[in-house]
Amino acid sequence: MPLRFVIEKKIPRAQGRAGTLLTAHGTVKTPAFVVVGTKATIKALTPEQVRDLGAQIILANTYHLYLEPGDNLVKKAGGLHKYMNWPGPTMTDSGGFQVFSLGAAYGKELSKITKITDPSFLLSERSSDSELPRLAKIGDDGVSFRSHLDGSLHYITPEKSIEIQHNIGADIIFAFDECTSPAENLRYQEEALGRTHRWALRSLEYHKNSKNGSKQALFGIVQGGREERLRKKSAKVLSEMKSQGGSSFDGFGIGGSFAKEDMSTAVKWVNETLPEEKPRHLLGIGEPEDLFLGVENGIDLFDCVAPTRNGRTGTLYTRKGKINITNKQFQNDFSAIEEKCDCYTCRNYSRGYVSHLFKAKEMLAATLGSIHNLRFIISLVEEMRKSILTDSFFGFKKDFLSEYLR
Amino acid sequence: MPLRFVIEKKIPRAQGRAGTLLTAHGTVKTPAFVVVGTKATIKALTPEQVRDLGAQIILANTYHLYLEPGDNLVKKAGGLHKYMNWPGPTMTDSGGFQVFSLGAAYGKELSKITKITDPSFLLSERSSDSELPRLAKIGDDGVSFRSHLDGSLHYITPEKSIEIQHNIGADIIFAFDECTSPAENLRYQEEALGRTHRWALRSLEYHKNSKNGSKQALFGIVQGGREERLRKKSAKVLSEMKSQGGSSFDGFGIGGSFAKEDMSTAVKWVNETLPEEKPRHLLGIGEPEDLFLGVENGIDLFDCVAPTRNGRTGTLYTRKGKINITNKQFQNDFSAIEEKCDCYTCRNYSRGYVSHLFKAKEMLAATLGSIHNLRFIISLVEEMRKSILTDSFFGFKKDFLSEYLR
Repeated sequence: MPLRFVIEKKIPRAQGRAGTLLTAHGTVKTPAFVVVGTKATIKALTPEQVRDLGAQIILANTYHLYLEPGDNLVKKAGGLHKYMNWPGPTMTDSGGFQVFSLGAAYGKELSKITKITDPSFLLSERSSDSELPRLAKIGDDGVSFRSHLDGSLHYITPEKSIEIQHNIGADIIFAFDECTSPAENLRYQEEALGRTHRWALRSLEYHKNSKNGSKQALFGIVQGGREERLRKKSAKVLSEMKSQGGSSFDGFGIGGSFAKEDMSTAVKWVNETLPEEKPRHLLGIGEPEDLFLGVENGIDLFDCVAPTRNGRTGTLYTRKGKINITNKQFQNDFSAIEEKCDCYTCRNYSRGYVSHLFKAKEMLAATLGSIHNLRFIISLVEEMRKSILTDSFFGFKKDFLSEYLR
Repeated sequence: MPLRFVIEKKIPRAQGRAGTLLTAHGTVKTPAFVVVGTKATIKALTPEQVRDLGAQIILANTYHLYLEPGDNLVKKAGGLHKYMNWPGPTMTDSGGFQVFSLGAAYGKELSKITKITDPSFLLSERSSDSELPRLAKIGDDGVSFRSHLDGSLHYITPEKSIEIQHNIGADIIFAFDECTSPAENLRYQEEALGRTHRWALRSLEYHKNSKNGSKQALFGIVQGGREERLRKKSAKVLSEMKSQGGSSFDGFGIGGSFAKEDMSTAVKWVNETLPEEKPRHLLGIGEPEDLFLGVENGIDLFDCVAPTRNGRTGTLYTRKGKINITNKQFQNDFSAIEEKCDCYTCRNYSRGYVSHLFKAKEMLAATLGSIHNLRFIISLVEEMRKSILTDSFFGFKKDFLSEYLR
C-alpha cells in the first residue's frame, strides 16, 4: 500500500473528520491545506520557509512540469522531492484541469472560481461549433492541445498523464480527467463524465500494473458539475472501480469549477457516496469560508493558489477579513498584519514595512505576503482539526466566520 | 566614541590589514563585504538569509529612503534596524552618489563602473552649457534635484543629508559629497573637490553637535577622481578635518567612479595618506579581482550591488569565473553551481534546477542566485582575512585569481 489513512475522530452528526495520512515521505495530519508549487517551486518561498510555516504537503503541476523543464528531466534529477529540495509528502495533479484551461485558453490566466462567470472563457474552453479558435481538442482516447508557453502541439492520454506523473514521482498522483465547465448542457456533462470514468479506469490499470503502482498512491477524480445525479454517479463509479488485478483508488479528488454557492452541496453529495475510509481532496479550493464547508462535509485535503497569489499582490488575510496592504492607510501603521498571527512576517514586520515593500516593488513583499497568507490558512485548518478533536468544530466555525465575514 | 576599530594584523610590505570594527549593534571582522539593502531590504532575501550566509553589516540608501517611504517614517517606525528587522550593524551612504546619478539621469539606471565609458551619461550627469536637460543643480550650499520616481523637486544640503541619516539611524553614516565623473576636466574636479571638503566640514559640524553625534559614526568621503594630487589632497584634508568641538571623522569612504585600471592606484594614494588607525570603506566596489586589490591596499570595507544584481539575473560566480546559468547547457547539469561553495543554494540545489527557475521566471531564482553570489563574495573576503592572519595573502591571491581570471 503506497498510502495509509487513519480516521482519528469524526464531527458528530456531520461527515467531517480528523485523520492521519501516511505517505512514503512522511505523515500529514488532516484536514490539511496542500501548498501549491506549480512549477516545482512555491512562488517566492524556499522549501524551508514553507515547512516552517507549518505546511505538511505540497502539490506540483503535471501540465506545467511536462512542458517545462520536462518530466524526463525531473526524473533524471532524482524526482520531484530531490529536484526541488522538498523531502516531505508531495502530490501532482493529473494535468487535466490545465490542459482544458491553459491549453484551451492560450495566453490567458484563469482562476477556477471566476471561470463560471466569465463568458469569454466559457466560449474559449469549448464551443460546439468550429468558428472559434480552439487549442484543446478532446477525443475519446485523449486530448490534443497547444502549449500556453510556445504554442507547440501536444497529445495527452490517461496513460501518458500517469507516465508523466511517474517520472515526476510525487507520493500522491491523480487520474486524468476532463474538467467540464458547469455551463455546459446536461448532455455534454454526461458524455464528458463517461469519458472521465473511462479515463479513470485506464489511469488505474496503467498505474497499478506499473512498478510505481506500489510506490505512488493514485486518486480518482469525481466530476459531474452541478448535477446531484451525476456527482453521486461519479462518486459511486469511482468508488467501485477496480483494475483487472483488483486494485482500487487510494483516495479521491473532487474536481470541477464550482460556483461559490454550489460547492458545499456538491461536496456533500459526493462524500455521502465515497467510501468513508479513504482520503478526499477538494481540488483548487482555499478561501476560509470554503474550507469550513469542505471540512464540515468530509474533505481531508485542499489545495489552492489563492493564499500565495493574494500574498504576492498585497491582499492579506486577517481575522476581520482581507485587507489590501498597499492602501495608503497602512504606510504609517506599525502594528502586525494580524495581531493573533504567529507567522514569521507578523512576528518581525509591521504593516507599514510590508506596505513599503509592495510600493517599492521589492521581492521581499511577495515573500512576506505569501508567508503570512499561507500561515493564516494553514493555522486556520490546524484550528479546525483541533476543534474536531475537542468536539468544538461548530463553535469555532461560528466564532471565526462571524468575525471574518461581518 | 560611536565606533572602535582595532587592527589585528597587517600584510607585510603592503597596506592591507585584518581588523575588528565595533559598532553600537555588533562587531564586524574586517576586511568585510557590506551587503547593499538599498530600500531597507536586501532584494529577494530575508534578513535571516542574509545573516546565515555570513553577512555582518548592511548598507541602506539615504536617497532612496528619503524619497520612499521617507526618513521620518523610518524614524517613527523605530529606526532602520527595527523597521527592516536587521538587528546587526548598518550603514547609510550620504545620498550624494544617487543625487548625481539617479537624480541627474532621470529614468535611467546606471552602474558605477560603466559610467565612465558611457558618454550619454557623462553628458547627462553634468554639462557645461544649458542645452541638455539637467535634473540635478549644484550650488555651493547644496543640490536641487528631481526624484527619479515622480519628478518632484528636492533640495539637499550637507546638514539635510545628515539629518536624514539621523532619522534613519544607521551605525555608520557618510558625509554629503559631490561625486564627479572622472571625465570632467581638471578645473572642474578641483572646484568640486573644494565643495566636497566644505560639505564634509558642514556634515561633521552638524553631526558632532547633535545628540546623534555620540551614537552614530560619521565617515568622510575622499574624492579627487583620477588625479594623484587631488586624491592625496582630499585624503589629507579629511584626515585633518576637525569640528569646532575638536571631533574628527570616525572613518573614511573612498568615492568616485573608477575605471577598472585606475581603482587600485587611487586607493593606494589615498590610503598612504589616511590615518592608519581608522577604518576605510571603498564605495561601490565588489568584483573579486577588485576586492583583492582593495584589501591589499588597505581597504577594510566594501559595498556593491553587483553580487545581488548578478544573482537576480542569472550571472553566478564560480571559482572558474562567472557563468550565465540560463544557458542551455546547464539545464541538464545536476551538479552544484560551485562545488567548493558552502552556501544554501549549492548545498540544496543543482545548476539544472536553478536554471529551470530562471527560465520559468520564478522568484526563487533571484533568491537562490543572490544567496550564492553573496556567499561567494563574502566567503572570498573571509578567506582574504584568514590569509592575512596566517601571512599567506599573496599566495591566496595568486591561487584564486589564476583560476578565476584564466
